[in-house]
Amino acid sequence: MTNLNLIHKALAHPFRRDVLRWLKSPDSPDTFPSTARLHSCHGVPLASIVARSGLSQSTVSAHIALLRDAGLIVATPVGQWIFVARDDTAITAFVARVASDL
Amino acid sequence: MTNLNLIHKALAHPFRRDVLRWLKSPDSPDTFPSTARLHSCHGVPLASIVARSGLSQSTVSAHIALLRDAGLIVATPVGQWIFVARDDTAITAFVARVASDL
Repeated sequence: MTNLNLIHKALAHPFRRDVLRWLKSPDSPDTFPSTARLHSCHGVPLASIVARSGLSQSTVSAHIALLRDAGLIVATPVGQWIFVARDDTAITAFVARVASDL
Repeated sequence: MTNLNLIHKALAHPFRRDVLRWLKSPDSPDTFPSTARLHSCHGVPLASIVARSGLSQSTVSAHIALLRDAGLIVATPVGQWIFVARDDTAITAFVARVASDL
């Protein structure tokens, strides 16, 4: 796993850990309480994450880019939208790696 | 755990992950092959880590400081020496936290 550095760097910020947690249960009304529960097979619209965060779109996009570069999430453009989903295979592999290496 | 940010930051560098691995089995000749296998109940002398690393003492000290600030290791001064050991309780708690949160 060549991107362990990138993964730890991505996880070193509480908002990025929040996003991963939110994406765990996108259907829950606690996660995205607004009307924006429009997630598809590609995940959750970036706009829903922006709405929940209260941060600017550019700030959220920068955080999302770090998570994507680390391979923890997949971002899929669909028309004008960007949908975001966890990469559960990569996350599971990372958790196993941390448990065995540390 | 308020220091999750610090822990992930500390783990985001391969040398710091190496040090944690070396400290797992300080008795193994593979870990510290030189004559410097002087570790005590307080752990391994910083000098042994410097010798194994091939890096300067100041560079190693900076890496060690990040690991210590994150609570992953304990550094104990004994006379002129500094001994370094894993904080296995903290490391185990971190691994469990990663597994449950991610």
